Amino acid sequence: MRMKEENFVDEKETNRLEAFSDGVFAVAITLLVLNIKIPGLDLPPNKLLHDLDLWRALRDEWPMLAAYTTSFATIGVMWINHHRLYTHIKRTNTMLMLLNLLLLLIIVFVPVPTALVAEYLVHPDQHAAALLYSGTMVILAICFNLLWRYASYHNRLLSKNADTRAVSAINRQYMFGPVVYLLALILALFSTPASLTLNFLLALFFAIPPRLPRSLSEQSY
Amino acid sequence: MRMKEENFVDEKETNRLEAFSDGVFAVAITLLVLNIKIPGLDLPPNKLLHDLDLWRALRDEWPMLAAYTTSFATIGVMWINHHRLYTHIKRTNTMLMLLNLLLLLIIVFVPVPTALVAEYLVHPDQHAAALLYSGTMVILAICFNLLWRYASYHNRLLSKNADTRAVSAINRQYMFGPVVYLLALILALFSTPASLTLNFLLALFFAIPPRLPRSLSEQSY
Amino acid sequence: MRMKEENFVDEKETNRLEAFSDGVFAVAITLLVLNIKIPGLDLPPNKLLHDLDLWRALRDEWPMLAAYTTSFATIGVMWINHHRLYTHIKRTNTMLMLLNLLLLLIIVFVPVPTALVAEYLVHPDQHAAALLYSGTMVILAICFNLLWRYASYHNRLLSKNADTRAVSAINRQYMFGPVVYLLALILALFSTPASLTLNFLLALFFAIPPRLPRSLSEQSY
Amino acid sequence: MRMKEENFVDEKETNRLEAFSDGVFAVAITLLVLNIKIPGLDLPPNKLLHDLDLWRALRDEWPMLAAYTTSFATIGVMWINHHRLYTHIKRTNTMLMLLNLLLLLIIVFVPVPTALVAEYLVHPDQHAAALLYSGTMVILAICFNLLWRYASYHNRLLSKNADTRAVSAINRQYMFGPVVYLLALILALFSTPASLTLNFLLALFFAIPPRLPRSLSEQSY
Repeated sequence: MRMKEENFVDEKETNRLEAFSDGVFAVAITLLVLNIKIPGLDLPPNKLLHDLDLWRALRDEWPMLAAYTTSFATIGVMWINHHRLYTHIKRTNTMLMLLNLLLLLIIVFVPVPTALVAEYLVHPDQHAAALLYSGTMVILAICFNLLWRYASYHNRLLSKNADTRAVSAINRQYMFGPVVYLLALILALFSTPASLTLNFLLALFFAIPPRLPRSLSEQSY
Repeated sequence: MRMKEENFVDEKETNRLEAFSDGVFAVAITLLVLNIKIPGLDLPPNKLLHDLDLWRALRDEWPMLAAYTTSFATIGVMWINHHRLYTHIKRTNTMLMLLNLLLLLIIVFVPVPTALVAEYLVHPDQHAAALLYSGTMVILAICFNLLWRYASYHNRLLSKNADTRAVSAINRQYMFGPVVYLLALILALFSTPASLTLNFLLALFFAIPPRLPRSLSEQSY
Repeated sequence: MRMKEENFVDEKETNRLEAFSDGVFAVAITLLVLNIKIPGLDLPPNKLLHDLDLWRALRDEWPMLAAYTTSFATIGVMWINHHRLYTHIKRTNTMLMLLNLLLLLIIVFVPVPTALVAEYLVHPDQHAAALLYSGTMVILAICFNLLWRYASYHNRLLSKNADTRAVSAINRQYMFGPVVYLLALILALFSTPASLTLNFLLALFFAIPPRLPRSLSEQSY
Repeated sequence: MRMKEENFVDEKETNRLEAFSDGVFAVAITLLVLNIKIPGLDLPPNKLLHDLDLWRALRDEWPMLAAYTTSFATIGVMWINHHRLYTHIKRTNTMLMLLNLLLLLIIVFVPVPTALVAEYLVHPDQHAAALLYSGTMVILAICFNLLWRYASYHNRLLSKNADTRAVSAINRQYMFGPVVYLLALILALFSTPASLTLNFLLALFFAIPPRLPRSLSEQSY
């Protein structure tokens, strides 16, 4: 009975860690809209733009919209990843909470390099913004790895009946994370568009659950 | 037993998807208040407005208050709709999470066209703001449809004992969504007030649960 | 069995309504800190204020701190009230969700009149800010009443084993709400400090749970 | 049966108190990113900085990044502490909700002195910012103590089978909190860096769970 109670406490602790993280993700993703300026919001009614000028003003906002969409997609995909890890992580301790905070520190920062990179899309010969963006992604990949390695090492914080195949599939997928993001960083020294494209493909790749070996996965679904 | 565990995992996943979405809705709806300027907040105490001037300054804020109320109502009604869908959707997968993110991307954007349209209420001969607003609503209706069609197709992600009548009532209600919002968009080319009125009526219509056939609904309540 | 399932759905629906409301309360109460300006945040390092000037700059911020504390307390007390009502309300429907949205619309707006009233504390002869503040409180009291009357009418949405004495104690407490807040509004025409004091006492009164008749409450605790 | 139901209500109340607090923590920690300015976000595309100038502009942002990281760590550690207390606190009442609100009032305010202290890192001879920061930490330590003393006094709001050793370990750890934070405040009169270092060590100390006596802890784990 003692043991059951402890399990219950652990479960609850994970819930609150997830709820806090969800809150941070939700606020970070929603704050992005504050960067979209509404044309003429501070003008008196008699100075408002006419239709043609308003369309032009809205068209000039496309880099803001690109930054909004990209940041939204990036943070959203990070949330899907975070969510996937916590379907396996079932218990928590102080170290996991600190590693989770470190991860959130980087995620909340993501809109800064994303806005920069969207701003500099018109200057493909300038590489500083792309380097900062790629560098942030490398750090993010390392933080995700730290969190997952710590929790999954010898099943430290996984549920007792964790699906070992799913766990080792994540292990394989995560092993390459920092390395390929580092490649995207090096690519940014030479070509901004190529680096951004690779980063985009990597985000998609990590959003999709790792494929289980066919013969095994057929059995379990 | 294997199956039961999977069910539990699925349930939990939906919970977290709902919690994240609730967070996004809550932040988006609360951020709206930041657009209401407080008159004289940056003035030194000896330069504060006198009663008559303050009333005048507050009265001049009515377009901001109109935008605040309209955006609040729009996002609130979207939350009610989202909430209704997830009383039927009980399981989740990567595709659903991506479709849900796409929906949230549009919902978080809603305050931008709403503020524009409230600003341009004084110029009913200008149609750009109303067109942008109506266009956003068309995209929103399409996103809601994508999410619901994906989840409800062959009961893919619905609960096994889903109320089939309620499901097909939502299907019928949603079928007309994009079409009628498209009508409101075309209407915006000719008359801004008419288009906004139609949009308002549509929001109300989608907030109210679809009516079940009387004879059947009598049985079940 | 049909009935049990429905109960479960209802329960879950209330949970999500509460989670969404909690999110709105949490964001609204935290956004208040954005109004506190940090002296010299935009100055270059070599132009930063010296100790004496910094103390003076911080001291001049007291109206901002007063507004921050007052708004925080007001929204906090509203959260306690909201939370108390939902220990009795156990089921939800579209009407309750709409009334809850109306209540949140006013609560999110509360920082605006509170900031104004804190700003005008130095001009007790000016009554416009106090009138706006008191007026908002009257509307808030009416919204709380609408929500509670709708949910508790013939136990419409209360739990089946609701504590009838607790329910009628809330009924008695709420009956006087709008009337006494209206008195505070009329008082604001004559004396700003008297009106604010009455509003403060009312907030405290509604934060404390209604007293049950002694003989009965002794039995149940 | 009456008793069981009461337990359930109490449990639920704690859940909602935790959810609300989590929301406040999540918003407060995420809002910190708003203080990081994105260089050139308001410039037209043809006026954007070149790589070298952009690197310089980013380098000049280091005090903002320091403030961001420090505030994030401070609020994060406070969340871990709050979370730990509520693994023991299982019931709630109006007084606990008010004490919890008081604690959140201070936590939401934390970014203000943290930003100031980061700004003044370049002027170690100026002590006003460090005094304000240390003073806030003293008040925070007192608020944490009030909350915990009130809840744990005669096990008032703890779970009935609370781990008495864990509870008295927290009691011992918290007893010294306000005193040592007061020492850091006095230290700030003489040396800003020494005071900040002590504050940092104290934050770490309170983030790590109190050590149980070895012989006893071996038994229970």
